[in-house]
Order: sequence, then structure tokens, then C-alpha cells
Amino acid sequence: MTRSILCFGEVLLRLSAPGKQLLLQTGGLEAHVGGAEANVAVSLSRFGHKAAVVTSLPDNALGHACVGELRRHGVDTDPVRFRDARMGLYFLTHGAGQRPAEVLYDRAQSAFATAPADSYDWETLLKDTQWLHVSGITPAVSTEGADSALRAVKAARAANVKISFDCNFRARLWGSRSPQAPGILSEICQYADLIFGDDRDIAFMLGFKSDDANATERRRRAAAMAFETFRSLKWIAYTERTRHSVDTQQLAGTLHSAKEVFTTRPYPLQGIVDRIGAGDAFAAGILHGLLKGMTPQGTVDFATAAGCLKHTVPGDFNLLGVSDVELFLSEVQTDVRR
Amino acid sequence: MTRSILCFGEVLLRLSAPGKQLLLQTGGLEAHVGGAEANVAVSLSRFGHKAAVVTSLPDNALGHACVGELRRHGVDTDPVRFRDARMGLYFLTHGAGQRPAEVLYDRAQSAFATAPADSYDWETLLKDTQWLHVSGITPAVSTEGADSALRAVKAARAANVKISFDCNFRARLWGSRSPQAPGILSEICQYADLIFGDDRDIAFMLGFKSDDANATERRRRAAAMAFETFRSLKWIAYTERTRHSVDTQQLAGTLHSAKEVFTTRPYPLQGIVDRIGAGDAFAAGILHGLLKGMTPQGTVDFATAAGCLKHTVPGDFNLLGVSDVELFLSEVQTDVRR
Amino acid sequence: MTRSILCFGEVLLRLSAPGKQLLLQTGGLEAHVGGAEANVAVSLSRFGHKAAVVTSLPDNALGHACVGELRRHGVDTDPVRFRDARMGLYFLTHGAGQRPAEVLYDRAQSAFATAPADSYDWETLLKDTQWLHVSGITPAVSTEGADSALRAVKAARAANVKISFDCNFRARLWGSRSPQAPGILSEICQYADLIFGDDRDIAFMLGFKSDDANATERRRRAAAMAFETFRSLKWIAYTERTRHSVDTQQLAGTLHSAKEVFTTRPYPLQGIVDRIGAGDAFAAGILHGLLKGMTPQGTVDFATAAGCLKHTVPGDFNLLGVSDVELFLSEVQTDVRR
Amino acid sequence: MTRSILCFGEVLLRLSAPGKQLLLQTGGLEAHVGGAEANVAVSLSRFGHKAAVVTSLPDNALGHACVGELRRHGVDTDPVRFRDARMGLYFLTHGAGQRPAEVLYDRAQSAFATAPADSYDWETLLKDTQWLHVSGITPAVSTEGADSALRAVKAARAANVKISFDCNFRARLWGSRSPQAPGILSEICQYADLIFGDDRDIAFMLGFKSDDANATERRRRAAAMAFETFRSLKWIAYTERTRHSVDTQQLAGTLHSAKEVFTTRPYPLQGIVDRIGAGDAFAAGILHGLLKGMTPQGTVDFATAAGCLKHTVPGDFNLLGVSDVELFLSEVQTDVRR
Amino acid sequence: MTRSILCFGEVLLRLSAPGKQLLLQTGGLEAHVGGAEANVAVSLSRFGHKAAVVTSLPDNALGHACVGELRRHGVDTDPVRFRDARMGLYFLTHGAGQRPAEVLYDRAQSAFATAPADSYDWETLLKDTQWLHVSGITPAVSTEGADSALRAVKAARAANVKISFDCNFRARLWGSRSPQAPGILSEICQYADLIFGDDRDIAFMLGFKSDDANATERRRRAAAMAFETFRSLKWIAYTERTRHSVDTQQLAGTLHSAKEVFTTRPYPLQGIVDRIGAGDAFAAGILHGLLKGMTPQGTVDFATAAGCLKHTVPGDFNLLGVSDVELFLSEVQTDVRR
Amino acid sequence: MTRSILCFGEVLLRLSAPGKQLLLQTGGLEAHVGGAEANVAVSLSRFGHKAAVVTSLPDNALGHACVGELRRHGVDTDPVRFRDARMGLYFLTHGAGQRPAEVLYDRAQSAFATAPADSYDWETLLKDTQWLHVSGITPAVSTEGADSALRAVKAARAANVKISFDCNFRARLWGSRSPQAPGILSEICQYADLIFGDDRDIAFMLGFKSDDANATERRRRAAAMAFETFRSLKWIAYTERTRHSVDTQQLAGTLHSAKEVFTTRPYPLQGIVDRIGAGDAFAAGILHGLLKGMTPQGTVDFATAAGCLKHTVPGDFNLLGVSDVELFLSEVQTDVRR
Repeated sequence: MTRSILCFGEVLLRLSAPGKQLLLQTGGLEAHVGGAEANVAVSLSRFGHKAAVVTSLPDNALGHACVGELRRHGVDTDPVRFRDARMGLYFLTHGAGQRPAEVLYDRAQSAFATAPADSYDWETLLKDTQWLHVSGITPAVSTEGADSALRAVKAARAANVKISFDCNFRARLWGSRSPQAPGILSEICQYADLIFGDDRDIAFMLGFKSDDANATERRRRAAAMAFETFRSLKWIAYTERTRHSVDTQQLAGTLHSAKEVFTTRPYPLQGIVDRIGAGDAFAAGILHGLLKGMTPQGTVDFATAAGCLKHTVPGDFNLLGVSDVELFLSEVQTDVRR
Repeated sequence: MTRSILCFGEVLLRLSAPGKQLLLQTGGLEAHVGGAEANVAVSLSRFGHKAAVVTSLPDNALGHACVGELRRHGVDTDPVRFRDARMGLYFLTHGAGQRPAEVLYDRAQSAFATAPADSYDWETLLKDTQWLHVSGITPAVSTEGADSALRAVKAARAANVKISFDCNFRARLWGSRSPQAPGILSEICQYADLIFGDDRDIAFMLGFKSDDANATERRRRAAAMAFETFRSLKWIAYTERTRHSVDTQQLAGTLHSAKEVFTTRPYPLQGIVDRIGAGDAFAAGILHGLLKGMTPQGTVDFATAAGCLKHTVPGDFNLLGVSDVELFLSEVQTDVRR
Repeated sequence: MTRSILCFGEVLLRLSAPGKQLLLQTGGLEAHVGGAEANVAVSLSRFGHKAAVVTSLPDNALGHACVGELRRHGVDTDPVRFRDARMGLYFLTHGAGQRPAEVLYDRAQSAFATAPADSYDWETLLKDTQWLHVSGITPAVSTEGADSALRAVKAARAANVKISFDCNFRARLWGSRSPQAPGILSEICQYADLIFGDDRDIAFMLGFKSDDANATERRRRAAAMAFETFRSLKWIAYTERTRHSVDTQQLAGTLHSAKEVFTTRPYPLQGIVDRIGAGDAFAAGILHGLLKGMTPQGTVDFATAAGCLKHTVPGDFNLLGVSDVELFLSEVQTDVRR
Repeated sequence: MTRSILCFGEVLLRLSAPGKQLLLQTGGLEAHVGGAEANVAVSLSRFGHKAAVVTSLPDNALGHACVGELRRHGVDTDPVRFRDARMGLYFLTHGAGQRPAEVLYDRAQSAFATAPADSYDWETLLKDTQWLHVSGITPAVSTEGADSALRAVKAARAANVKISFDCNFRARLWGSRSPQAPGILSEICQYADLIFGDDRDIAFMLGFKSDDANATERRRRAAAMAFETFRSLKWIAYTERTRHSVDTQQLAGTLHSAKEVFTTRPYPLQGIVDRIGAGDAFAAGILHGLLKGMTPQGTVDFATAAGCLKHTVPGDFNLLGVSDVELFLSEVQTDVRR
Repeated sequence: MTRSILCFGEVLLRLSAPGKQLLLQTGGLEAHVGGAEANVAVSLSRFGHKAAVVTSLPDNALGHACVGELRRHGVDTDPVRFRDARMGLYFLTHGAGQRPAEVLYDRAQSAFATAPADSYDWETLLKDTQWLHVSGITPAVSTEGADSALRAVKAARAANVKISFDCNFRARLWGSRSPQAPGILSEICQYADLIFGDDRDIAFMLGFKSDDANATERRRRAAAMAFETFRSLKWIAYTERTRHSVDTQQLAGTLHSAKEVFTTRPYPLQGIVDRIGAGDAFAAGILHGLLKGMTPQGTVDFATAAGCLKHTVPGDFNLLGVSDVELFLSEVQTDVRR
Repeated sequence: MTRSILCFGEVLLRLSAPGKQLLLQTGGLEAHVGGAEANVAVSLSRFGHKAAVVTSLPDNALGHACVGELRRHGVDTDPVRFRDARMGLYFLTHGAGQRPAEVLYDRAQSAFATAPADSYDWETLLKDTQWLHVSGITPAVSTEGADSALRAVKAARAANVKISFDCNFRARLWGSRSPQAPGILSEICQYADLIFGDDRDIAFMLGFKSDDANATERRRRAAAMAFETFRSLKWIAYTERTRHSVDTQQLAGTLHSAKEVFTTRPYPLQGIVDRIGAGDAFAAGILHGLLKGMTPQGTVDFATAAGCLKHTVPGDFNLLGVSDVELFLSEVQTDVRR
């Protein structure tokens, strides 16, 4: 069977304070497996696709537990490599009310960040694969990450595998390598069929200031510039989030083709359970629509619904399936299904 | 002392995923005891009434634990029968945001569903009892359940015990026996003094389509038809729920006598903790009002307040007392009582 | 180094039902350390001040655990005295929706309440100290408490230590000693530089009925009367809370100098986690502003933000720091900091 | 139906550190209901007897939760009185290895300790009752307790109700009233049919030093003296415990009639889960044997087995039934029953 | 890659009381996935083999969660079939001291028990497979189970796939079908290369009484008779368990070939954590030895060590790997590996 | 007040699997603070000494939480330095039966390991200090650690502060720097007054093979050689552990002066709760004896008892006090203190 997608990026172990506690306020931590690309793979697997993850993990109990967790959700983990290096971690304090959530990364020198670019045999890895998904986090974590990401997208282009790229700019991860970021990210975008990124991402990569006061206009112009600059680009997608508090927000999605814009209405998010991974759930939704040949409007509706629903699931993964998304979109008022 | 009420129906063990997790997302389940009729009994017991439950339960650790839990809340469990059969279970995933809660029944072949109709000696059981409470779930679970429910209401009528019936139509439980449902349910209603059910329930039983666009009008007409059809009927009661999300809703109550309608204002429900059993808490509130000789308006106000407050209590049971309901109705703005 | 503040009052062990459960609904309790004055000390310590607590605690595992918890948050506990008496407790049921939280005090005969007034050598204790903080709870718990509080404020006045007094009138604690309350509280106020209390507190102490229909006007008049009556008084501060439900409220702060009033806008409180100690967090914020020489408006803004943020932290203590408060005031919409 | 036993004594709320943690080492406590006499009542109820508890409890959430827990295990709690006073508590740190468990009492001024001796109408309470069970803890907690205990046993004697008395001498509870202890305890013993107590208890009550080097001989002599002194006495029972560590011990039981001694072999106790209440489980076992008319040897075997099995059940109550005790005595080697 | 083993049998969801609690003593249950054959598959997967499970599971959240858990541990679940029927459950109370563990089965009418014998296409399922593993539980659960098991072993014999059979006689599961048990079990044994069963199993199947007083002799004779009767049989294996308490036991293993007997020394089991699945871990160890071509002595040593180590792992699965077993066998005294 | 001891070394955050679970078997981790030298400081603080820790920790929520935890137990943390680097972690799987515990270090590149040797101003830090405690872990973690340790002991010698050194050789931490270990460790020993280490440590440092078959003789010879080689050395101490299983062991202690040997009887360890930190608890016990001027035999008895008791306390710290140790040594058989 043909594989729908291969996701390349770091798998992280997330350690979070229970409930609404501050980090180490009492003596327990909850462990979840995450990472932007793994999140996309799990979500697509739950949508019924054959999804695989390629990454480097420590050859110890932590690395193997992460692989087990991906496998549990149906992801093909055969491409995972094990190395003698540390596990990438992040510590999470959930937010509450007007207190934002807080992420404390502890991923330097991880098995993934230190894996040499020639660790991955892309030709073999990409065989019988429809899409490759990469994010801007990979080039941010290390020089090796940047080299690996570039090799991956070049190999995919050569092998006629479609490329999905989530810009995911994180200044803290780039650190002193920040000045190289625009160059590297836009080089990757040259190969992408699909980019997840809004006007700020595009402005950052292409080096201009996006200053139109009208947000909608600003995004359309940025998208136009991206379609102009990046030759393989067919789709740009992003969400717009409005925040009232950590618990109550609003989400709307947009999908641009070179010629058209497809937008959803803003959906209210109430009683948010776990906001981490919502962007990845949206990304998985877009990819699901494209893989299934849905209409652009149907695709962005599905993806935004998936992104909204992710806010109701503890952990980084969106574990909900196609029927859950469809129920959401049907807007039937149900509070108990029995 | 005279017993206020005897509740007849299946006692279930509910196994729910902790917090906002999906079912079996991690390795724990929370156990609660529930069941529509047991919920009514517990609530009335906490309101100070002498309430009893008659049911069939497995003669094992699970069945005895359920009885212990009912007894803990003051319910008289002497009428409970133990049999060599399985425990009725249901698995619950709590909802969140726009993701509805999900109930997975596992109650087929339970000690209750398989108990022969002659298991219960109604003449003895109904002695010194003011009300019998039955719900539409009992005839739905099995032929034996349907026969038992009919015998119960006939015996009650013969013994001059008032009858309260909660329609509670659940298509999934009736399964292939669905076509018999209207006949059985309306036969039971022939004996009832009090019915919990709205226009959809009445339409279903009496076989017409309730299609007036105006909901209030639709409900009044359905009630009128019920009062006409069911000769013993004195009261019809129901709630109307408006949903914004799983966490934020609105509840209003209505009580019809043959001639008048008594309605409450819609009460906002915020930060809903556990929605299961709210209808039963409302039913207990109506029965409390009738038992105490409160005015119809006072009765529906009390019942709706009880139904609202149930949403704040984990588990199926409404454990709050009369003073909690009165504080709610007083609308004094208190966030900490000390 | 000079000590910013010495807080005098009872340290309590709080035992609360987990999550939204009723007290002892299931078999667990969560333990936190609290007490109005200790809360102020911890908050000021987390804001970077040298804060100490003086109290009497049982010389057993409970008393020593409380001291350990204060020390954990940087509070100087050297002034704590240990006695052979019981620990002051309170049991807390968190509220939900329209069900208010409930506090059950079990603090009679505690080590603090029974400590003789000559237990504390104020001259030594107040050395090198800028502020003494006392609350109206201390005179309420016992005659010894009242005597001790009066000795403390007199000694502070003599030693040129500024005095902060939180009225905190609790009728249930005064019990049969209630008639003495106005006299004792207003005697303490005679020594105070700063009072936390609104028009109801002042009316209660000064024996008039505050009946102006306009709340703002009523508060200004009460404040004016307080400034007239209490000769040392320089500041009065309080918050105004609007409640929609236990989870959703609004908070605004006010700071009066003898001549001016400084008010904040009402801040929405959504998804409230733990409301206990919010007043103490506000008090600590005012004291922080005064200690740092902030403007009155800056002070009340900071204090109100601190009070709001406390609602997001489990337990009695506000564990958040100056940068958290500043982020809140910046009103930057952040839901995840990474 | 005739009631097998009425147990009179304080019901306590036990708050214990989880697992093997020290008290408040982390932020949780486990709550159990206990108290020597309540433990006997619960155990007899689980053995199939009609057992009741008479006590005084606070009229608040804690008191009512305790009553609910007794009722859950089938105990008749109708005789319980509610008062406006505090709940008796004790804090427990479980032991481990060579670190003994530690009990911290917080029961002074409790609803039970302060209940006037005329709170209980013994004539009514003892109607249709076979046995009254009292322990030496009740006279120890307060003068009121001592008076109440004496009134109870005198009323029982008058009403021809058999009396069971567990000496349970606890110096810490008697405090400054210790000198009165021997007199009060031996006055109660004058009415008892059955005493739980070994040579140390008897020596303490009768004021001699039990100094025979041979323990068996010492116990027989003490028993002989008790039978001589206490005119109603028919049975004396006690256990002998040998300790290797908190987790590994040995237990043997003895039952004396006026003329004979019945002893069990020492049973090994391995992997002890909860040692609290083992003596009460033994007492319930003896009472079960006497109520059922078992032979003295059968009675002490049953009781010792019950005492051993209690060590495997978390909490103060022995929740195991007659069939569990019989399986233990059968000495069939079973590690999983399926 | 050739598959080492295909395991056919029911996958169960186990719901256990936490720690040493009795079932539903408090409100939580721990969920684990188990089932004799699934346990063997997981253990072999952790030993590095390609293992698959074929079974029927409900097409709902419970069934899919079970499959996810198997997949997590590396088991190939592609052969699993989903049906519209209930999940097989069992409730477990862990034992303690002299209180045995207790299993309460709730597996009647499960998706597996009701799956028609033609549900499984054995020809396809057994392709490229070295061993088929079946247990005596499958024919016990239902007529369909018995038919399916027979079809499976016949198909395996035809396809030259080796057959491993664990007798696992459970009278409670056979119920009224018990008289058929010996015939069905011995028919299956006619096809087996490897049987797990001791003298009692063989005596039961072949209809004689194994009454030699000397246990070793009894077992040898029974084995000899089995080798004589069952023509394909090459190996018989079993463990001998000695019990001091639930926590402290001893385990020895034996492996018979037609001509020789290989036995291990008895290994002490101290501080037993979870005894369920130990027999399956032993079975997996024997299969590992045979698959790897280890010597018979090496095989039974490895298997017994694996069986011992299982007692230290919570849940039904033995999650330990080859290196853990080898460390155990090396008998190096290590209490902390760092 | 003079400070009893300054402990220099890395403070670690330990993340352990709950109970007897394998690492990440389910989704929770328990967090404790530890580290060999911090453990000594906490234990001495609980014994009533003024103990301080000097270390480098990350300037984030994790580092500050560790400091809070040390402070909670009375340790002076003023000397702690905060840096912008990662937290040193270790993951712990508790052992069970014959399955050893497993430590997975994740401490490379930590704030401590990367702190330059000139980070610490020893002259100031050692003022008014009686003892400096260092362990062999510090030179093992990095070159900076080795330099810092040497500077520390030299400064202590110069300032007349006594030096305690725990050899604690860990090959895995030294890694490729292992060849330098003997030289560095023995250079530190040149300054030590007290060394914790047995014959293997001494043999390793001084480069000979300790091959006498008689263990006692081997240890005496090694000690003699150490006293000869290390000029400042006055005491050598170590424990000898015998293992039956992870749960059941035996511990004996030895203290050598230059001329005499003091030994304890072997104490049985049953029901071990947490073995980590037992060596540090022993070390703290020796230091307590020396600080208090106890006899050598009293000192080693106290220290061994402290080491034994540590096995009963969850976490790395020995939280028990002097009276607990004295109760242990009294060998009074108590299983419940009340």
C-alpha cells in the first residue's frame, strides 16, 4: 500500500504540571509524546491514512517509549533511527485565565539535533510516498537539522513526492543562528507544494515588513508574494486565533490557492483543554483534504474543525477521527452521544 | 414511617475516563454508580425523603458495591434482589468544548435485563409507599423489563400508589424492539400521575409528528393531547436545554397541569462539571415539590434549580440538599460560603 | 538586610476535596498551607522582598510541615514559635457553576488561638522591619489573639514600623465575642498606616449604616470618615468583585489616599482555578507598590493584576512573580509562552 | 429482627499520608473512617449481623460523610446523634521496614468527647439488642465519655444485654486523668461478660505488677484474677503479636473461659497493608463466634484469622466476610481465585 | 520477513482495584489489556520476535484501544477483526498477605466468544508463520471458540506451521460445557508440537487420576503418557509454584522432551507486584528458546527467569526484554543499575 | 551561628516511574530533588545542624523549584548560583523482586557541569564553616567539576575547614575521562579528614588490586594504605550491603580511625521503599556523630541506623530526625506509635 505521508522532525517527550498547577508546585509530572511533525502523523493516522515518522531518538527506555506511543496510534515507526544521545524534552505549565501556558525547552544536544545529515537515506525512505511533511523547527534546532531538512526536501522533489512545510518560526530555538533563518526557511519553501504560514512568516522569510493595517489585506498580499517567489507552491494555509483568555478563544482558517482564498467562519473555543498541537491538527486536516481530493473550501473547513477539536484533547496529539470532525461541522447541538 | 417513593429500574456501574481524557487514553477509569431511577432515589433521599430502590443486581462484588453506594446516600436497599448474572455497565467519555460526551452502553444480559417479570412481589414492595417511579429505560432493556414495568404500574394503581414515569426514550436500547416502543410506553402512561417528557416524547408515543414551528406552542399542544389520552395524568414536566458548548449551556423548566403551565426563566449553566443525571435531578425536584405540597410554580422552580445544580456535582447522583437548592434560588451572589 | 515585612497571624492547614468533588465524596483530600497573613508574606517573598511570618504552630509533624512550606517559598520562619497544641485546620469544598465554594473552619483551640499574648517579644521581632501586617482574623479567633494583635500594633508604632491592617471581618469566627469586634478592630485601626477594607468594614467599625444607593459614593464617604477617625491612616485599599458564576467573575481595585482615589478598570476573570487568597494577593500587591515607591495608580494596577492572577493558581498562595504581573498588565495576548 | 450488637464510641476521621510517605511529604491525604467501636460494628455487619453504632458526630459535611460510610457497609446509624461541635480526627503516617507507623490524635473537644452523659437514652437504644460493645477509649477521651460509658454498661446490665469491653488502654488519651483510669476501667469491667485485654491491661486495672518471666503463665494468672474480681465475666480474649518489621509479623489469639484456655497457632503476617483496626477485627471475630454459638476453639480461630486478614485491607475497617475467613482457615494455597 | 508466531485467542480488558484495595473500595479502577495469547505475543515481541495476534474485538473505543496497546508493544495487529459486539472484561482484586487475588470474569457474549468459526481465513493468516499459539481458554469460552481453535490447529498442521498449546483449564469458563472439555482439549493436543500443562492437565484430558504421591514421578509419568498419546508432540513444559503468601513464593520450571527432562532450581519470588500473566511469560520464554535454537536447559532456564521477572511488572504483559532475563540468570547482585 | 557544613555538588531533579511501573509504562512521573551532596545537607539539617548547599542551577522554574525544596527542609541555599543552562536530570525506574532499579542519567551540559571553576568564591563561602562535603561525582561530571572540587578542598584546607569526601566512583559519568579519575580522586583525598569509600574505592585510587579473599581483611588493609597515603586523613567509613532481593537486604557499617575499627551488626532491611540516597544518609550520620563529638562506635551505629531508615522514606532525602534514629537503635518493637 502506498504511504500517504512521511513526517520528518523531532519527537519530544513533554512533561507537564498536572491540571492548572505551576511546574513542580507538587511532586508529579504528566508525560506525553509530541513534536510538530509527529503530531501531524498521528492525526493523519487517526484519519485513516498510512502515515510514517522518520526521526532520531535515544536508544534507551525514553526513546523506545516514544516510538511505542506513536505505534499505538497507528503510525509506522520503521523509519525511526536510534542513537546514543539524549531525549529531547520540554516542560509545560498549562495556562489558566489570563496566565499563559509556558513552555520550557530542554532539547539541546538531543539525539535528533545531533544526528548527522547523512543519517537518513532519503531515496529509500521516500519510496511509495505521496507527501513529505517538514517544519521550520527542524532547521532551527541545529545545523545538522537544517542540512537534513534541505536534503529531505530536495530528495522529495527529485522523487516526485509532494512537500508540505510548516514555517513554525521559533526565535528561541534559532538562538544565535537566527540571522540564517530567513535564508534557510525560504530555500526550503522553494521546494514546497504547501506552506503553513501567515503574513508574519512570509514577511520574515522574504525580508519585508507586513504593515498594512487591514489584516486580511496584509495576508493576501503576503500570500501573493509567496506564490510569486516560491515556484512549486500551490497552497498556503494558516489559522487566525483571537484570545479572550487561556480558556476561551476563537479560531478561523484560511486556505489560499494561487488564485483564490477560502476562509471559514470564526469558531468559538470554550473550555479549552489543551492548546498544544492545534496548529498541527489543522495542518493534518489540510493534508487530509488534499489527500482525499476534497474541495478547497471543504478542506479548510475540515482542517479548522480538526484544529478546534484538538483543543478538547489532552496531550499534543489530536486523537479524534473523521467522524468527530464531521459531527463538529454538522453543528448539531449534542452534548451527550448515546 | 411511610416511604415517600419506590424507584424501580436498573442500577448501572459507570466507568468514565478521568477528566477530559478520551476513553482509555491513559490507564485509569473512574467508577460511579448510576441509573435513571437510582439517581431519583438518591436525590430524594438527600432532600430528606425515605426513598427505596428495587432492582436486580449481580450477587458479586460489583453488585454489592452498588448497593453499598446507594445505602451510603441514605437509600433503602432492602428491596434489592441479587442474581447470578452480570453487572450492567456503561463507559463514559466526558465531553469538552464542542466535543460531546459519549456513552458506550454495555448492559445487555445484565442481572436486571434478564430478571423474570415475576421476580418482584409488587404487593409487598409497594406497601406504605406514596409514589412509584419508573422510567422508559426499563421497558427498553428487555422484554422482561417491559413486562416488569407494566406489572409494577398496574400493581401501583391497584394499591393506590401514585405513579411517576420518565419517558427517557433511547432508540439504541430498544434496538430491534423499537416498533413496540410507542405501544408499551403509552400503555405505561395510562397509569401515570406524572410524566416527564416533552413534545417529542409525546409525539413518539401517540404517533404524530409535532411540527409546529413555535416550540412553546408545540409543547402545549402535545401536553394537551397527553392529558386527553392518559386518564390518570395530572402533571407533565420537562426541561429545555440550550447548548453553547459542553461547558456552557442554559436550562429552563416547565410543569403542566391539565389546565395551567408553569415555567421558569432560563438559568445559565457555566463551567459544567457533570451533565449526566441532570434530568433525574429535575425529576426528583418535581417529586419533592409534589410530596411537600409546594405550589406548582415553586415546584418547577425548585426542580429546575436542582437540575442546574446537578451539573456541578461529579457522578450521576445529585448529592446536594434542599438548602443548596434554596441558596441557588435566592440568587444571592456568593462565591465562598464561610 | 532590612526586612520588608513581618506578617503576624494564624497559619492554617487547608484540606480540600479534589477537583469539583464535594467534601469526602471520594477518599482523598488535598493539603495546602494558608492563612491570610502567611499568604501576604509568601506573595511578597515571590515578589522579591524579605518577608517573615510570626505565628504559633503545633510542635508536631503538621506544624513543622507548614513552616517547611513557607520556607520553601522564601519566607523567613525564624520568628515562628512551636507549642504543644493543635493545628488550625479548614476544610474546603471548591465551588462550581452556581454552587459556591464552602469553607468549614476547624481552628478552635489551635496553637495560635491559645497562645498567650506575651508569647511574642515584639521589640525583638520588629527590629529592622519596614512594615507589620496584621488582619482582623487574629482578634477574631480568641481573646489572646485580640490582645496579641493590639500589642503588636502598639509595639510597631513605638518602633516606627509601618502598619498594614486587613479588616477581614468574619462573623462566624467572632461568634459570641461579636459585640466587641467594632471596638477592637477600630482600636487597631488607630495605629494603621494602611487599611484593607471597603465601606461595609468601615461602617461596621465606626457603627453607622452605609446606605447611599450609589456604591462609589458610599465607598468614598466611608473612606473619608476613616481618614478622619484614624489618625495614622494614609491609605485605604479594596477590591470590588462581580460574580457571574464561581468560574467567571470580574475584579476591580481601588486605592484611596486621604485626598485622592485611584481605580482600575474591571478585569474579567475566566476559568477561575482557586479563588482563596485573592484578597491577600491584592494586599501583597499594594504593599509591593508602597515598598517599591510606585505611583498610587501603578500600585493599585499592580495589586489588582496580582489579585486577578491569584485566581489561576491552585492553593492559598499567590506563587506568581513580578514579571507575571507585568505581563498581565501589558495585555499582550499570549496563550503559550515559549 | 433482633439487633446483634450496639457499638458505642467515637467515630473518627483518619487522614493518612499516601503509601509510605511521611505526613505532608507531598500534598495529599487519604481519608478513611474509623474508631475502635465502629470498626467492630462494620466487621460484624460484613459478617452478616445486624450491627448499630451509637455516637455523637458534628452536624456538618464531615459528620454526615462518616455516617454515610458506616451505612455503606450496612451498619445501622439511626442511633447516631448530631451536634454542633468539631469532628474527631487522627493523622496517620504508615510505617515501613523498621520505621513504625505514627498516629497523631486531634480529637480533643470533639462532638463525641463533649457530648453530655445524658445525650443517650440507653433504655430505648438497647431495646432488642443482644450485645453492647464499649471500649476503654471512651472513658479516656473525657469525663463525659467516662460517665456515658458507665451509664451504658449499667443500662445494658439492667436490660439483660450482654456486655463486651475492649480495655484499649491509651495513656496519651487519659492525659492528666490517668490516675482515675484503673478505677473507671475496672468499674466497667464489673459489668462485662467479655473483656478484650491481656495481662498488662488486667495488671493495670487491678493494680499489681505482672512480673512472671513466663508470658503464658503470666497471662493465665492475670486471667484468673480477672475472673475472680469481675463477677459477670465469662470470657477474656487477646492476641499476641510478634514483630520482625512493620511489614512482617506474627499473630496468635487466645480465648479464656473461667476454666479453660483456647489458643491458636501463630500465623505469619507478610506484606502487611494496614495494621490499624486489626484488634477490632479480632474482637468482631470473637463476638461473631459467640453470637453464632461456635465452639470456643472455633471462635478464637475465626477471630484470629479475621485479625490476620484485616492486615490486608486498606483503612480501619475489616471489609472481608465469613467466606474469606473460612478460606484463610482452610489453609488452601491459593494466590488467585478465578 | 517471516513471522515468528501468530497467537490466537481473546484479548481482554482488565479492570483492577488500585494497589491493595478491594474492588470498588474507592472510586477508581486501573485498566490493562491482557489475555493469555496476547500476553505471549507481547512478550515475544519484546524479546525481538515478529509476533502477531488474531482475535475478534468490538468495533468501538474499547476494542480499538486494546489494539493500540498491543501495537504499542510491537505486536502486529493487522489480523485483528472488529465486530459489533461487546468487549470481554475481567475485574481483578489484587491479593495481599494471605488474602488471594480474585478474578471476576465478565466475558460472556463478547466479540470473541460470539465470532463464528468461519470468521478467520487460516490459510491466509498462517502464511509465512513459524508457530501458532493457542490456549485452552479459547475452546472454553464458547462453542464457536472451540470450533475456531480446532480449525486453527488443523490449518496450521496442514500448512506446516508448528503448534504451541497452553492447556489452561478453567472450570468456571467451561461451565455446563465441562464434560466436553477433555475431548476437545485432547483433540487439539493431537496437533500440538508443544504443550504447556502439568500432570493435572494431562490427567484431566486423558481421563485418569494422577495419584502417585511423589510429585516428580507423577509428572514424569503424565508426560510419558502424553508423548505416547499425542503423536506430533515434541515438548511439554510447566512451572511449579510454592506459595508462602501472595507476596512471597517460589517458582521452578520443567521442560520435557520425549526422552529427557530439564529442570531449573526453584527461584524465590519476593515482593511480588503482579502475578497475572506469569504463566504466559514462561510460555513465551520457552517459545523464544525454541525459536532461537537454544539448548533445552537454556530454554527452560530462560523461560523460568522470564516467568519470575513477570511478577515484578504491573499488568498482564511481561514487558521485559532478553537482557533483563539474562541479567536475572547471571545472578549478579545488583539493586540499582546506573 | 557557625555553619556545621557546606555541601558542594550537583543538585538533580529525579523523575521516577510511579510505584513498581517501568519507565513511561503509563503517563506519569514523580519528581523528587536529589544529588549526593544535597542529600547529605538535607539529612544534617533534619538532624538539627546548620547546613548549606553550594551549587549551580538553571535560572528557570526547575532550578528555582529545586532550591525551594532544599529550603523547605531547612537547608541554607543562599550560596546557590543561577545560570542560563539546563537542569541536570535523572530518570529512575524502581526495582522489584529480582528486577533491579535502573537509573538513566540526563545530566550532561547541565548548569552545574558547565559552571566555570571560578564561579565559586570559596574564601567567602567557607567563612564560619566547620566541614566541607564533596563527592567523587563532581569531578566526574566535567573538567570544570574536577577543577572546582580541587579548588574547594584546597580552599577549605587553607581556611582550616574540615573536609569530608565521598568517593562515589561512577564509571558511566567519567566516560572517556576515566583514566584521569584515580589521579584526581586521590589528589582530593590528600586534603580529606574523612573519606567515604571501601576497599574497591581505595584500590581504584591507589592503583592496586584488592584481592585478599577475606573481605574484612581486604578492607582493613585498604584502609591502612589510605591512612598511610593521605596525610590529613582521620576517618574512613563505609557500609556493606547484602542483597536478597530489591525489597529485602542487609546493611552493616564500619568506621576506621587510623588505629581502630568500629563495626555494627548487620541490620535487616525489609520492605524497602526507596534505596536511593541511603549512602548519603549514612554519610550524614557519620558527620553528625563527629560534629556532636559522639564516640566512634556511637557514630557508626547512628550512621548505619540512619542509612537503614533512609530505605523507608520515598525520595532521595532522608527526612527522619535524631529521635527516629534513636528509636531504631533502641530496638524497641513498635509498629504503631500513638
